[in-house]
Amino acid sequence: MTREEFSNAVELPVDTMAALERAAESHRHEMLFSNRAFHIKQSAVRDVFDISIQPGLISLAGGSPYLKSLPLEDLGRTAQRIISDHGLEALQYGGGQGMEELRRQACEVMAAEGITDADPADIVITTGSQSAQDVAAKVFCDPGDVILCEDPTYVGALNAFEAYEVDVRTVPMDADGLVPEALEQQIRALQAEGKTIKLLYTIPSFNNPSGVTLTEARRQAVVDICSRNNILILEDNPYGLLRFDGRPLRPMRASNPQDVLYLGSFSKIFAPGVRLGWALVPRHLYRRFYLACEAVVLCPSPLTQMLVSAYLREYDWMGHIRDSRELYAERCSTMLAALEEHLPGDVSWTRPEGGFFIWVTLPDGVDTYPLLYEAIDAGTVFIPGAAFTPGEGPSNKLRLAFSAVSPEDIREGVRRLAPILRAAVDKAKVRRAG
Amino acid sequence: MTREEFSNAVELPVDTMAALERAAESHRHEMLFSNRAFHIKQSAVRDVFDISIQPGLISLAGGSPYLKSLPLEDLGRTAQRIISDHGLEALQYGGGQGMEELRRQACEVMAAEGITDADPADIVITTGSQSAQDVAAKVFCDPGDVILCEDPTYVGALNAFEAYEVDVRTVPMDADGLVPEALEQQIRALQAEGKTIKLLYTIPSFNNPSGVTLTEARRQAVVDICSRNNILILEDNPYGLLRFDGRPLRPMRASNPQDVLYLGSFSKIFAPGVRLGWALVPRHLYRRFYLACEAVVLCPSPLTQMLVSAYLREYDWMGHIRDSRELYAERCSTMLAALEEHLPGDVSWTRPEGGFFIWVTLPDGVDTYPLLYEAIDAGTVFIPGAAFTPGEGPSNKLRLAFSAVSPEDIREGVRRLAPILRAAVDKAKVRRAG
Repeated sequence: MTREEFSNAVELPVDTMAALERAAESHRHEMLFSNRAFHIKQSAVRDVFDISIQPGLISLAGGSPYLKSLPLEDLGRTAQRIISDHGLEALQYGGGQGMEELRRQACEVMAAEGITDADPADIVITTGSQSAQDVAAKVFCDPGDVILCEDPTYVGALNAFEAYEVDVRTVPMDADGLVPEALEQQIRALQAEGKTIKLLYTIPSFNNPSGVTLTEARRQAVVDICSRNNILILEDNPYGLLRFDGRPLRPMRASNPQDVLYLGSFSKIFAPGVRLGWALVPRHLYRRFYLACEAVVLCPSPLTQMLVSAYLREYDWMGHIRDSRELYAERCSTMLAALEEHLPGDVSWTRPEGGFFIWVTLPDGVDTYPLLYEAIDAGTVFIPGAAFTPGEGPSNKLRLAFSAVSPEDIREGVRRLAPILRAAVDKAKVRRAG
Repeated sequence: MTREEFSNAVELPVDTMAALERAAESHRHEMLFSNRAFHIKQSAVRDVFDISIQPGLISLAGGSPYLKSLPLEDLGRTAQRIISDHGLEALQYGGGQGMEELRRQACEVMAAEGITDADPADIVITTGSQSAQDVAAKVFCDPGDVILCEDPTYVGALNAFEAYEVDVRTVPMDADGLVPEALEQQIRALQAEGKTIKLLYTIPSFNNPSGVTLTEARRQAVVDICSRNNILILEDNPYGLLRFDGRPLRPMRASNPQDVLYLGSFSKIFAPGVRLGWALVPRHLYRRFYLACEAVVLCPSPLTQMLVSAYLREYDWMGHIRDSRELYAERCSTMLAALEEHLPGDVSWTRPEGGFFIWVTLPDGVDTYPLLYEAIDAGTVFIPGAAFTPGEGPSNKLRLAFSAVSPEDIREGVRRLAPILRAAVDKAKVRRAG
């Protein structure tokens, strides 16, 4: 697929977007936009969402879960029964907190990871955990307030936060996740700047995009630093149960019910199409958080809530997670082996213990964004690293997702990508030498 | 049901909420809340949502559509087919604008009301039109900016707007809807105050809660006034097709594609449980609006989108609307007759030409909020008028919904309510006389 075909294929191609922007700027309505509106960015992940589903292209871009192992026939019958037997409830408005049964089941899911004291009364079912991130920024952050996050971090969270004019600042990670000393240093630096730090947003297990996991030893240290500085932790844990080997690590919320607002998601352990997640909110923060959720959507869909609820009640959901773990582990190994085989020696990457993503680092001086177009021409697609950090500068990183791609396609995708990366590395070498 | 039972019955009873608020105030995290958070209010409609479904109680409160006439067996089979045949699409992430077929179908729905030039490319499918109201306030309003609205107006919109520290100001209505002269006067007064007016939020057909319709003659006058003053119109039209007699009035958007951001909903013509609506956005405003939608939810649920899409493709949806219109018309007449029969002479009410609601006005000096508790004790429930206006003062109005109640229950509900209203009217008379 050529670059032009790419532009024509995506629903909102970059050129059209630019044209729309020009149209907006010259219109008398332009002055109606809020300051906030100018902070709302386009997501590189969403940009390539549409292209990713083009035939022939091998997408290593989207963080989609593998759904083919779900029992679709049975789920179809379950949905049929929900609508024919309980349609008056499933198709009507529901309560703003979400259904009690589903909130109880969310507690069971969390118990499987080590959160054993969750009360369904402290849960709000949200329209995906994306919506919980939006609401968290809304109820906690005035313009200019700081949210700390890992560098790199989830692009959707960055977009949600920046839409509220939040000053998103990063904390460095190493192979063991967030570095506590660096966190403390960043907090002191920001306090010296006179900034108000409201939240630490973290994906401690299999961070999106890096795949890095915060070690157990560091988890409490991070909570304690935040607690001492009156910073609330927003723990986003969509992948926690998808640890390839051994037991899942205990979430930070497990021992810290007061200091952590925990976000869970049904997208990765069941299916994103139901658009459901949940927030487990410290009781003293619950009321405002819940009211804000309600002000955005009135209620989560009773129909999809009942489907998830039936899935967790009647199906072997833990068995599905076990199968998924094996499948993702195999795909991750396949991708690591392919990277080892095809990429040059001065390119490095993470070795995740779970989740969906591998994070590739090219030598300094390589900008991965223009490589995206070359990759598309070569029949594959990834997400450039710049998407996952609040700054505007170029990035020498990129994210590869192995979750929704067959091992054969993973090998082929990496094979297609390798010459592009190799050429870019060589070009950077020549530039440095010159 | 007693008042105590009421408190225990609702998911988040008023007392518990107060306790939660006290817990929050004394916690060191209280200072983490944004200014915005203190503007997020509890909705009286949502307060009584849970009580409304208690057995024995006749609810004249909630604006729920009547769903029993939907072909639930068939819809169940449709959902089954969607999941078993297209589950990999229905249960996966989807595009941020919503599916193209559903956007095309939204254009067909709008064409039935007189909007014949809508382009699917200008539509965003939203998580209910509530979510579109939230996004509109987000992308257009800085704190202190004004949104004009009818007095009274939809409580959910008030909650969405006030969560962004919007200064919501009202424009008086008469039996023909918004009064253009009063609109002009309010604009001049606000301009003299130095305020920035961004939007006029209006429900021109069968306003919630009043049931009042803006006449065709006035529609263009209102648009012209707004256009002259560079105020964008946010036209919320969930009930437009539910006109009891004759053709639906043309929405304000029909002749004014540049000046009206139009909100449609599948909640009232199909089912609220799918949580889907749409926004038809002037092209020059589309990009920022769309990006803001995506930042909140990534994408609307593909599963529920495909269900609505199949419903509009394979079922006689216009026939269902015709049946619904007849049913709602009959219920409205029943309620009007019951009010005529049971209420004292100094109580008045609106005579809607469509929609779900009748608006009852008691004499000055009556506060309808405390009457809610008496009504619950008597086995019925309504929404006090104060919910539907941005001010804090008491209201002598109340909203009655006839949409989801059988004619027998409408008569019985009004019969239960009447002595409470009569006593309140008499007490106010005595007070005035004393």
